[in-house]
Amino acid sequence: MAEHHLSHQNFPTLEKTHIAVAQNASGRSLNVPIYRLKGHSNDSSKALKVYIQSSIHGAEVQGNVVIYHLLQSLLKLPICGEVLLVPNCNPVGTNIKAGEYTLGRFDPVNGTNWNRGYYYDENEVVKFAHSVEESQSPQMIKQAFRAQYKEKIQAKLNQEWGLGLAQQLNLKLQQLAFDADIVLDLHNGPVSSRHIYIPEYAKEAAYLFSFAHNIFIPNVFAGALDEATFCPWWTLGDALQSKGFSAADFGVEAFTVEMGSQEVIDFAEGKKDADNILSYLQARGLFAENDNFEHTNKQAIERFGVSLADYKTLFTDFGGMVEYCAKPGHPLKKGDLMARVLNIDELDSTNAVFELKAPCDLIPILHFPSASVLSGTQLYKCFTNYKKL
Amino acid sequence: MAEHHLSHQNFPTLEKTHIAVAQNASGRSLNVPIYRLKGHSNDSSKALKVYIQSSIHGAEVQGNVVIYHLLQSLLKLPICGEVLLVPNCNPVGTNIKAGEYTLGRFDPVNGTNWNRGYYYDENEVVKFAHSVEESQSPQMIKQAFRAQYKEKIQAKLNQEWGLGLAQQLNLKLQQLAFDADIVLDLHNGPVSSRHIYIPEYAKEAAYLFSFAHNIFIPNVFAGALDEATFCPWWTLGDALQSKGFSAADFGVEAFTVEMGSQEVIDFAEGKKDADNILSYLQARGLFAENDNFEHTNKQAIERFGVSLADYKTLFTDFGGMVEYCAKPGHPLKKGDLMARVLNIDELDSTNAVFELKAPCDLIPILHFPSASVLSGTQLYKCFTNYKKL
Amino acid sequence: MAEHHLSHQNFPTLEKTHIAVAQNASGRSLNVPIYRLKGHSNDSSKALKVYIQSSIHGAEVQGNVVIYHLLQSLLKLPICGEVLLVPNCNPVGTNIKAGEYTLGRFDPVNGTNWNRGYYYDENEVVKFAHSVEESQSPQMIKQAFRAQYKEKIQAKLNQEWGLGLAQQLNLKLQQLAFDADIVLDLHNGPVSSRHIYIPEYAKEAAYLFSFAHNIFIPNVFAGALDEATFCPWWTLGDALQSKGFSAADFGVEAFTVEMGSQEVIDFAEGKKDADNILSYLQARGLFAENDNFEHTNKQAIERFGVSLADYKTLFTDFGGMVEYCAKPGHPLKKGDLMARVLNIDELDSTNAVFELKAPCDLIPILHFPSASVLSGTQLYKCFTNYKKL
Amino acid sequence: MAEHHLSHQNFPTLEKTHIAVAQNASGRSLNVPIYRLKGHSNDSSKALKVYIQSSIHGAEVQGNVVIYHLLQSLLKLPICGEVLLVPNCNPVGTNIKAGEYTLGRFDPVNGTNWNRGYYYDENEVVKFAHSVEESQSPQMIKQAFRAQYKEKIQAKLNQEWGLGLAQQLNLKLQQLAFDADIVLDLHNGPVSSRHIYIPEYAKEAAYLFSFAHNIFIPNVFAGALDEATFCPWWTLGDALQSKGFSAADFGVEAFTVEMGSQEVIDFAEGKKDADNILSYLQARGLFAENDNFEHTNKQAIERFGVSLADYKTLFTDFGGMVEYCAKPGHPLKKGDLMARVLNIDELDSTNAVFELKAPCDLIPILHFPSASVLSGTQLYKCFTNYKKL
Repeated sequence: MAEHHLSHQNFPTLEKTHIAVAQNASGRSLNVPIYRLKGHSNDSSKALKVYIQSSIHGAEVQGNVVIYHLLQSLLKLPICGEVLLVPNCNPVGTNIKAGEYTLGRFDPVNGTNWNRGYYYDENEVVKFAHSVEESQSPQMIKQAFRAQYKEKIQAKLNQEWGLGLAQQLNLKLQQLAFDADIVLDLHNGPVSSRHIYIPEYAKEAAYLFSFAHNIFIPNVFAGALDEATFCPWWTLGDALQSKGFSAADFGVEAFTVEMGSQEVIDFAEGKKDADNILSYLQARGLFAENDNFEHTNKQAIERFGVSLADYKTLFTDFGGMVEYCAKPGHPLKKGDLMARVLNIDELDSTNAVFELKAPCDLIPILHFPSASVLSGTQLYKCFTNYKKL
Repeated sequence: MAEHHLSHQNFPTLEKTHIAVAQNASGRSLNVPIYRLKGHSNDSSKALKVYIQSSIHGAEVQGNVVIYHLLQSLLKLPICGEVLLVPNCNPVGTNIKAGEYTLGRFDPVNGTNWNRGYYYDENEVVKFAHSVEESQSPQMIKQAFRAQYKEKIQAKLNQEWGLGLAQQLNLKLQQLAFDADIVLDLHNGPVSSRHIYIPEYAKEAAYLFSFAHNIFIPNVFAGALDEATFCPWWTLGDALQSKGFSAADFGVEAFTVEMGSQEVIDFAEGKKDADNILSYLQARGLFAENDNFEHTNKQAIERFGVSLADYKTLFTDFGGMVEYCAKPGHPLKKGDLMARVLNIDELDSTNAVFELKAPCDLIPILHFPSASVLSGTQLYKCFTNYKKL
Repeated sequence: MAEHHLSHQNFPTLEKTHIAVAQNASGRSLNVPIYRLKGHSNDSSKALKVYIQSSIHGAEVQGNVVIYHLLQSLLKLPICGEVLLVPNCNPVGTNIKAGEYTLGRFDPVNGTNWNRGYYYDENEVVKFAHSVEESQSPQMIKQAFRAQYKEKIQAKLNQEWGLGLAQQLNLKLQQLAFDADIVLDLHNGPVSSRHIYIPEYAKEAAYLFSFAHNIFIPNVFAGALDEATFCPWWTLGDALQSKGFSAADFGVEAFTVEMGSQEVIDFAEGKKDADNILSYLQARGLFAENDNFEHTNKQAIERFGVSLADYKTLFTDFGGMVEYCAKPGHPLKKGDLMARVLNIDELDSTNAVFELKAPCDLIPILHFPSASVLSGTQLYKCFTNYKKL
Repeated sequence: MAEHHLSHQNFPTLEKTHIAVAQNASGRSLNVPIYRLKGHSNDSSKALKVYIQSSIHGAEVQGNVVIYHLLQSLLKLPICGEVLLVPNCNPVGTNIKAGEYTLGRFDPVNGTNWNRGYYYDENEVVKFAHSVEESQSPQMIKQAFRAQYKEKIQAKLNQEWGLGLAQQLNLKLQQLAFDADIVLDLHNGPVSSRHIYIPEYAKEAAYLFSFAHNIFIPNVFAGALDEATFCPWWTLGDALQSKGFSAADFGVEAFTVEMGSQEVIDFAEGKKDADNILSYLQARGLFAENDNFEHTNKQAIERFGVSLADYKTLFTDFGGMVEYCAKPGHPLKKGDLMARVLNIDELDSTNAVFELKAPCDLIPILHFPSASVLSGTQLYKCFTNYKKL
């Protein structure tokens, strides 16, 4: 990146605000910081809106460092559009300790996953599609759809009997995200290699990022922010096509990005993660001066892809103490050793140690972060039937 | 109950076994006790199968006392069929403490509700319905359906990559429950009056129980045991009718019964709860000699009914310290005081105390068990648009 | 209380501030509100300093309501001195949920009790006593001791390698409390009757409060705020006496007051609790016009006292499901029923229910708040060898 | 180890039993396995008794693997005496999950550290010393002291009002351990290098183990098993000496051994850990045929020692997200970088990242296992003023 070529007047402006997303038992507001970078481009048709949040799961903190590095870089880049950076977007989840670790994946009161309460209503999308006329430009449709969709979200937030905490939090964030063309939700796995969830219609984005492990997901809403972002547009596009309209590309893409392991931050890795994202954003046209930006290790990477249905969870049917022998990111053959399990009541017998083998060829992507497991534990998540991209 | 009229040879036999439903990190099996009472009736066509479990949510323990009293009574009653009593059916949930209380509603590892992993597949039911021939008797259909359904459950349990702990537990219990004609799942609310969930098709059962508060639920599966029991039969019946078959009543009923507040057991109340259930079972023909059994306070009760859609949760949009002024079971008018909320940062101002009013006429059924609430807390669950039955 | 006799110019002034006692993982300060009421008396020799805090254990919230009522009353009373009210003094503990309840008794990271990190160093007190000269007035000694003691506390807070969270919190509060002549630390028991801890040297204070149950504690420091307040003065007085000085009464008293059950607030009860405290404060001379204030039910109360050594905890040697038959505050005779325990594996045998009897004559003061107990659970705390006062 | 030199008749016998140390809320016993290896030596004067337990802190599981390897080796070694192996000695702590991790350091009900409830009473030891006569041999004294001490422990366990769960567990284990001459309590740190606590009187044992980091502790009881084992003997020896008796060496040694990081098991490392311990046991004379056993990397190790007072904890005075830059076991100079802290509200300012520097020359031994810290967190524990041994 030839930063010296840029004149300072092309640098974006930065506005920092906070929004209250919850109130704690002391009656105090819990705020989320919002860093809004605005570029100076005059060409609004090319202006891109980007939304990036991190730490919706409280223990998944590396994304905060990634956003830190993104901000440092973006402040010196000729942004054509607007970038919203929302680090540490779940101030409840980040601050619930249970022992030394952060109980960040779900609401400690009721178990609700913090990443499953975003809004999506297929029927509303289809209804909207019915109201669209052929004469409308994609840009007009986009604007009208956004306005209506955000009204629906607001209506949910306003309902008289109220909403659960996770859902309130999710909807307030979604209000911000739904304006964006590009949405990145930064997560971590338990003990995990880096990987990314990509909607199938945007498969080629895999080549714009530098993730070795790519999961392609269908148009099915399971509650997460990436789905809540792309399902409406995907469904809208399909509905319009089934009306006989020509295929409209609304240019919206959304990804869940898994930045390694939870409970860890690493500034040096975060810089690489940020560059990885910047490289994608450059390819999508965020920067006015495109030719200079070069992601260094783009060529080096070997990419693997898997469809969501083949991204499988290996549950234990035993309880015990586990050594994780398969390392995240390293392919195994069927029958290779995945784990050794110690049975403390049988230390003197041949049942003392039990070996768990790979049920098929696979790449372990992440594993459970504790040696102590009950039966029914998600031991590993694995690529099966994967392909080299 | 004129117990002296019974001769001992009519008393049921009792068989006690245990099944392992999980394994802990020490590698030890966690067992659920099963008390199986078998009657001596020769008339198998009239023999009823009953399944009653308690404490799938670990902190909801009153059902264990109810089962204790049921067992004491049933041992001296002329059972025509079979009763399975499964107390404390979740040995994991019962034993997870977090502070002095029991973290019993969800798996502490991942937040999964312990009562949402039962099996139901509408498509499989419809497919089965297609295979039924008009010549088959309801009894034959019932038997075939049960056999096939239990195979499906077993297949899920056997799948190569395994299942999560809550789902394993649920399916193992469902294997037992799916044989029954009558299924009762004994729960408690947080701070709660007694109430019952009744499938709409079995509405008249409300008169056979003595619960003041009755919630009628539609044929929608949300994961709980009662739904997992009645949805298949309800759907099968509907599918057969839409094939033009005459309405078949399979005689299967399932209920979630809320026996007051969690974290509390009360033997005297448990005796009444057991009598309440026995009264219903008598009406359904469980006992060979019907005329003697008389539930004492059956006449006294005033019953209210509400459809599930009108059983509403009042969430807070504030955090603070709450006095619960509305008492479970006592009707309020719109505008009546429900709660007072203290704001510790405003003790010197007029905002020190905030009063929460009933948004409409309602009966509060249960409320949150802690004075300290975050925003988005389920403060009350209430009957609205309810009717006297 | 004849409030209309007071002219408004005698009302105290109120100053509200916040102090930061901790920082959360989001990097944000956690603040404690401080309400400081100053009277207008010119007679500084009679001016009393009072410090009252609540909710150092996060789930023990009734004290916040008591402070609310105290503030309302004090604002209209002719205070002769100064009153510091510090509600919700532990913003960490208040906001740690584990399930629906508040995990408020200890730091969730390391188990440290929030009420055990105050400072006391007997050696320092004795050393100070050595430095005192006979010519010094009690007032001079008091001032010098306070100054030096607060320096020690500050030195601990400032140490280079830092301190644990609970200790930091405790010391910051103790800095405020050590200036006071009267310190009240408002707590709750699990399921509990109201009771109070009184240092033995201030035994007669029992008659100034209206608590039925009074526990007299010796000059032994176990880490709590009341001890951290009275142990230094008690030890100082003893040390001076053993030097041959005449007995100096520094007029410092400190109490832990248990305002009923945790997880509950009750405004009406809180008003009575506040009046109870005001009655004591009046007797200690806080109000310029003493004759008007009359605590209504002072005569009615029957008081029981017990020495700390006889305030005993009954631990279980079993695990099981418990009905608490003995009610807090109601005396039992040896052999009376305290609890019934259900054994879910023995429902069909005579071991199904086990009865726990009182090991001696006693008054149960509080019991465990959950029916589910492991072996080694604090089932009851009881007065034994108690006396009517 | 020339195992082929041993004839099978010299192999020890193995007896496996279980003891119940607690009962859970389901009323079920929680058992600890005990593996007792007995040698065949005829020379009882040389017979050594060894007690080794692991996982008193539930998340510290590597010791279980170490015990597994110890057992494998010991079964083929000519033991002169007896070895008790007690893996997974805390079945409560091992099985309390809070999120994916094990809440193993303290009782989830009340925060009691599982390793602080062992018995020690200095006065009783001194009293016993008074009763000793000069004519008694060390062996006689030892036997009498053991008998009396174990009676005291039993008396505590038997007391009418019962004991807390952690204390019950500790005392039941101590009953087994107090018979031993050598006691090893196997622990782990959070993220930790291997290190060992050694009583000062047994300093030279540091050379018999192969731990790089050795902490020497004084004769002060803080509740842990090693202290509960050596304090009585140390105090007894001192008391006898102060009576003018010649110094008696009772030959009792006890160590807390920290086998790396919690939540992890590693079989290969566990083999090395076991060999490390065997090497020490050989030096202490556990094996009849000593000359063959050779710990391979004994020479290679560089050892550092520190007195307990100089083993310091670095607490944070900030809350935030932390990158741990200092790695356990790697020495730092004063001013070297220990950690980087991200402040999510200041990403755009120079305060975005704060660097924490070493306050003096030190060796970080362990650090907190989560990036998210509140103020007052134990960030690092460090050797300061350490010496090369």
